[in-house]
Amino acid sequence: MTDAVRNILSNYASQPPGVRANLFRLLNSGRLAGSGKLVILPVDQGFEHGPARSFSDNPDGYDPHYHYRLALESGCNAYAAPLGFLEAGAAEFAGRIPTILKLNNHDSLAPDGVDPVPSVTASVEDALYLGCSGIGFTIYPGSANFKHMYEELSAIAATAKAHGLAVVVWSYPRGSGISKEGETALDVVAYAAQIAAQLGAHIIKVKLPTGHLEQEAARKKYEEHGIPAGSVAERVRHVVQSAFAGRRIVIFSGGSKAGEDSFFEDIRGIREGGGFGSIIGRNSFQRPKEDAVRFLNSVQDIYLGK
Amino acid sequence: MTDAVRNILSNYASQPPGVRANLFRLLNSGRLAGSGKLVILPVDQGFEHGPARSFSDNPDGYDPHYHYRLALESGCNAYAAPLGFLEAGAAEFAGRIPTILKLNNHDSLAPDGVDPVPSVTASVEDALYLGCSGIGFTIYPGSANFKHMYEELSAIAATAKAHGLAVVVWSYPRGSGISKEGETALDVVAYAAQIAAQLGAHIIKVKLPTGHLEQEAARKKYEEHGIPAGSVAERVRHVVQSAFAGRRIVIFSGGSKAGEDSFFEDIRGIREGGGFGSIIGRNSFQRPKEDAVRFLNSVQDIYLGK
Amino acid sequence: MTDAVRNILSNYASQPPGVRANLFRLLNSGRLAGSGKLVILPVDQGFEHGPARSFSDNPDGYDPHYHYRLALESGCNAYAAPLGFLEAGAAEFAGRIPTILKLNNHDSLAPDGVDPVPSVTASVEDALYLGCSGIGFTIYPGSANFKHMYEELSAIAATAKAHGLAVVVWSYPRGSGISKEGETALDVVAYAAQIAAQLGAHIIKVKLPTGHLEQEAARKKYEEHGIPAGSVAERVRHVVQSAFAGRRIVIFSGGSKAGEDSFFEDIRGIREGGGFGSIIGRNSFQRPKEDAVRFLNSVQDIYLGK
Amino acid sequence: MTDAVRNILSNYASQPPGVRANLFRLLNSGRLAGSGKLVILPVDQGFEHGPARSFSDNPDGYDPHYHYRLALESGCNAYAAPLGFLEAGAAEFAGRIPTILKLNNHDSLAPDGVDPVPSVTASVEDALYLGCSGIGFTIYPGSANFKHMYEELSAIAATAKAHGLAVVVWSYPRGSGISKEGETALDVVAYAAQIAAQLGAHIIKVKLPTGHLEQEAARKKYEEHGIPAGSVAERVRHVVQSAFAGRRIVIFSGGSKAGEDSFFEDIRGIREGGGFGSIIGRNSFQRPKEDAVRFLNSVQDIYLGK
Amino acid sequence: MTDAVRNILSNYASQPPGVRANLFRLLNSGRLAGSGKLVILPVDQGFEHGPARSFSDNPDGYDPHYHYRLALESGCNAYAAPLGFLEAGAAEFAGRIPTILKLNNHDSLAPDGVDPVPSVTASVEDALYLGCSGIGFTIYPGSANFKHMYEELSAIAATAKAHGLAVVVWSYPRGSGISKEGETALDVVAYAAQIAAQLGAHIIKVKLPTGHLEQEAARKKYEEHGIPAGSVAERVRHVVQSAFAGRRIVIFSGGSKAGEDSFFEDIRGIREGGGFGSIIGRNSFQRPKEDAVRFLNSVQDIYLGK
Repeated sequence: MTDAVRNILSNYASQPPGVRANLFRLLNSGRLAGSGKLVILPVDQGFEHGPARSFSDNPDGYDPHYHYRLALESGCNAYAAPLGFLEAGAAEFAGRIPTILKLNNHDSLAPDGVDPVPSVTASVEDALYLGCSGIGFTIYPGSANFKHMYEELSAIAATAKAHGLAVVVWSYPRGSGISKEGETALDVVAYAAQIAAQLGAHIIKVKLPTGHLEQEAARKKYEEHGIPAGSVAERVRHVVQSAFAGRRIVIFSGGSKAGEDSFFEDIRGIREGGGFGSIIGRNSFQRPKEDAVRFLNSVQDIYLGK
Repeated sequence: MTDAVRNILSNYASQPPGVRANLFRLLNSGRLAGSGKLVILPVDQGFEHGPARSFSDNPDGYDPHYHYRLALESGCNAYAAPLGFLEAGAAEFAGRIPTILKLNNHDSLAPDGVDPVPSVTASVEDALYLGCSGIGFTIYPGSANFKHMYEELSAIAATAKAHGLAVVVWSYPRGSGISKEGETALDVVAYAAQIAAQLGAHIIKVKLPTGHLEQEAARKKYEEHGIPAGSVAERVRHVVQSAFAGRRIVIFSGGSKAGEDSFFEDIRGIREGGGFGSIIGRNSFQRPKEDAVRFLNSVQDIYLGK
Repeated sequence: MTDAVRNILSNYASQPPGVRANLFRLLNSGRLAGSGKLVILPVDQGFEHGPARSFSDNPDGYDPHYHYRLALESGCNAYAAPLGFLEAGAAEFAGRIPTILKLNNHDSLAPDGVDPVPSVTASVEDALYLGCSGIGFTIYPGSANFKHMYEELSAIAATAKAHGLAVVVWSYPRGSGISKEGETALDVVAYAAQIAAQLGAHIIKVKLPTGHLEQEAARKKYEEHGIPAGSVAERVRHVVQSAFAGRRIVIFSGGSKAGEDSFFEDIRGIREGGGFGSIIGRNSFQRPKEDAVRFLNSVQDIYLGK
Repeated sequence: MTDAVRNILSNYASQPPGVRANLFRLLNSGRLAGSGKLVILPVDQGFEHGPARSFSDNPDGYDPHYHYRLALESGCNAYAAPLGFLEAGAAEFAGRIPTILKLNNHDSLAPDGVDPVPSVTASVEDALYLGCSGIGFTIYPGSANFKHMYEELSAIAATAKAHGLAVVVWSYPRGSGISKEGETALDVVAYAAQIAAQLGAHIIKVKLPTGHLEQEAARKKYEEHGIPAGSVAERVRHVVQSAFAGRRIVIFSGGSKAGEDSFFEDIRGIREGGGFGSIIGRNSFQRPKEDAVRFLNSVQDIYLGK
Repeated sequence: MTDAVRNILSNYASQPPGVRANLFRLLNSGRLAGSGKLVILPVDQGFEHGPARSFSDNPDGYDPHYHYRLALESGCNAYAAPLGFLEAGAAEFAGRIPTILKLNNHDSLAPDGVDPVPSVTASVEDALYLGCSGIGFTIYPGSANFKHMYEELSAIAATAKAHGLAVVVWSYPRGSGISKEGETALDVVAYAAQIAAQLGAHIIKVKLPTGHLEQEAARKKYEEHGIPAGSVAERVRHVVQSAFAGRRIVIFSGGSKAGEDSFFEDIRGIREGGGFGSIIGRNSFQRPKEDAVRFLNSVQDIYLGK
């Protein structure tokens, strides 16, 4: 075991051996194995946005096997997807790459109000049956449905841990409690990371925050203490600090849409700020596979300090 | 086992042996046995629309035994019905044809709003008691009650699979999230097929889509990529692709009401587009039996390439 | 076993032996034993309308033992009541007459809206403890609370069957889905019988229908096919047909209020139409016992063809 | 066993031996032992109205031990209280007096609407752990929350009975279904007693009714049959009759506030009308203990016919 | 065992040995061991108010280990926190200080209405797994969601007790049933203590009350009996009396914000009034550790009578 991995695992000393074994697996797969960094391929867009919006740019993506192959060939640490996509490949790709079963999902046909609440579409038992290393669960802090989601997660996480699965929480602020701009505000994203950590997440996924500050009571503290928030690295550092001073793995989605160079710049910021990695979906599987592999390898190289 | 069936079953490699055995049974019954195609007789209209609206055209249909006989004599792969209809014939026709227990239903006496939600009227245990090969479940993507239905299906499907039953999902977009015309729009039907597949359906039933495109964000992709949607075959092909690139069985209801010739034309379109078959209710049991057998045999002949 | 009973039981061939044994008991008790006909005494009015409205006409009825005696002395097939009434006599009258525990009830103190929903006030376990032959459950098709009631019944019926109890469903259309006149409309009552049968009822209780037709879509079919609906016998025949072509026991409540002669005329209509019997509450227990026995015996004599 | 107790217990012949043993205990404790009459001390006002409103008149009442002692020294049949009060004395006073655990409660801090619904604050398991003889449960017939309360009681009563506990139901009409005056109307109180009995209560507690008649449909019957309602004794007789013609124990709370003489006159009315006793809370524990003992003994003497 | 502890434990004679063992542990830890007094460090503000608002004043607080160390070094009796914070230190600090798992929490991103309801974010099983001595649960008497919270607590407390854990209830009046000023009114705080005690709390945490009286019906009693409420000590004495005349441990949060001297004066008032101690969060962990230790030791010294 590398020091990087040992250091990270030491933060999960209270967790069951099965959980630590699966965290070990996630940290020791793919091109980033042993580095303490993670790049994960998530593909839930077919459910969330519909098949044509998700896969017509690169029609290979209609096929669930494609994403297994993409994750493997690009050297990702893990592949995360809803039940159907994993059922359609779990036998063929069994054991070749750690998988994370997304337990709740939302679709765009639903007449969605301002306060979203996803559906629980699979269970810990499904994840165990399919040989997954972890379960994924989305919460929307700021939604009026918070109690429902937190309690679903709370019960599911306890079951997952008791069965040795890693708990990965997508913590996406959204809903009538905050503004649209607030969804990626620094204070809000840091708070979302804290909530996920307090709810018992092992791995926390948040969006890359902007410098915006949303909540008045928080803004005062940021200004009073001059918390640095000018650069991506500074903001990432604050979010990682907010997730138990670095004792919980925090990975980031999103990044600049101005082009690859700016995107890679953001990845460098994550690395400098002490972030543990990235989760990259549409930006990878919507390109032709060869290009996606190149792109993901570039991201991984940045995390490897190359 | 024919190659056609072997190919299809290979897409369910992750599923329990009991499930695969029941899929095998469904694919190896009736006149289409071994062809990889399915024609299923569903009779839930007595519950959904009332007895006189459903059966007075052909009063033999009031008798639950009639539908068993019709499915058998016409060589259908399976017969699907609610609890009462199966209870009333399961002993007499035990083992003679695969049956699918429709687990949720809706009636037309209910003061229905725009966002329907069916009642769960039977259980997996009922299906096992009655010797069924699968369970049927209807979801309405686009309804405000989506979370309720998806979570019902999720729990029921897990139980069904653990007990070796095939999971057949009627995925019918309907509700305040979409327009009336949108219920059969190509993008919406494709999305409905994707959702059912992601929720873990083994067999997906959708309506034959029109060329209409409902969602703005989707339309852009259809136009950008020039996704062919002019003919029944093209639209069916897109829906089948949207259900995991053909890795899940998709069958179709509906079809032209302009006469038998147009209807058969649509069936040819389904076959050409790679659809796996049809589910035909009112169009069969509301005719005199002799005529219904002839009609269903004609449909089957098209699937057999005759 | 008489042919009449054997014929009826043959329609329940799929049901557990315990259920069939209890149906046998119900069909072989009292003066109608073996005739294939049923007259049942139900006394839930104390709960539904209050004690004085129910029992002050004949104050003997305040005593729960009275109704056991009335059912016995009048030769009814069974006695149906809520938990309290059965608890208060089950030990004293154990085994002397089949009993049916009404599992849900409603009271008139409740601030009732247009869409009623009864309370589940006892369980299958209570029915077994008290030695009952069946359970009774009321549904209100047409109520906005349909899903709640159907799913309660669905779960309760499954438990009852697994424990060998007969399932008796009071199917009373009521609620915002239909008009007041529609509650006894022929199409609606036939539909209510169908729904109960599809939900798995063994015995279905409906109100004697009028010739009114409520639903536009149904009316067309009645007119198109000239379904006879002019006489009580014709309407009963249609309702019995709508309950699986006579494969489910359908009994009727209500009847003419114009006097005994008209009432008996209605009973003759039920018999001629193939109805399986009557359930007669207030019309019997609100009279002095001697008169009630005479009255019930007259009804039974009609069913016996005397 | 006295004849009085034997007669009462004979009305519970269907109930489990453990239930009958606990009813025996309740009827054979204190100064009224063997008389067939009950005086019970209930102390839930601390929860319902707050500590100062309940106990500042007689500050000894803040101490949970005080009420055990008061019940013992005054010779009450039983002491009824919420979880906390019993937990705080159950060990010290174990076995010295039958106790009844109040399983649901309501507080006056809650922003109460017109349709109350109490909280279930303890369980049958708690009652068994604490060595109670029975459980107490409040329902509010007339409240829009009726279904919720009836179903809670139904489930709890079944569990209690299966574990040998007596079921004591506080049946207090209240809510948008009735007027304020209607809460103690004769027809409404009689109906409330009937509902509790039908729900399976062993002991029913109602308020002493007035001569008011609330429901139009009921009033007609009271007038048609000239049901006597002029005196306390007559009204009590009607309520007892409405609880299964005296086959269920009915006890009364309330009574004249015009002074002790009028109050005792009401007690005499309860005795003459065949009532089974009283439940007296504030009127006893808010006096100094010596005075309370004298007062309760006077009530008991009336029931003893002294 | 000291007399002080023996006296307190004697009030819990009815409780399971495991519960009493954990109460013993809480009373025999830290600098106040054996004194019968408690000072507890609670750190749930990261969840409740967000990380920056909670920890930026003293950034060491971002690290969950910091609070374990602070509680240990300052000689607190126990440390209370949500799941995440305890998971992140439970292995490293196992057995060194009693811990209390806060089972429900609320966050400030939620679009909160006037009637709050926290989320249950961990379970009794989590507390047992993590080696805790007790569970913490917040209720908001006065909230329209009271039934939900009371019933959650009721079920959780029963499970906790059966597994030997102490039940600590944060009873914070809040919601549409009371005014803002009423949240700390003497009558309301006393009532909140009574409710927690009746719900079965072993240790009750309330806010230090003001002299305000909120409820009209209560005010009359306070005035009629001249209940002393002028000083902190008098108000504390009344609250302790309201929690079963001192038979339940009541501790206080809050205190003067006018400076340390006034704050310590309040602590002296709590001691004089018979309060069992304090729970001090932000006032301690938001200072540098050295200062916090000094501050907490000063509080403890007051309780020790130094």
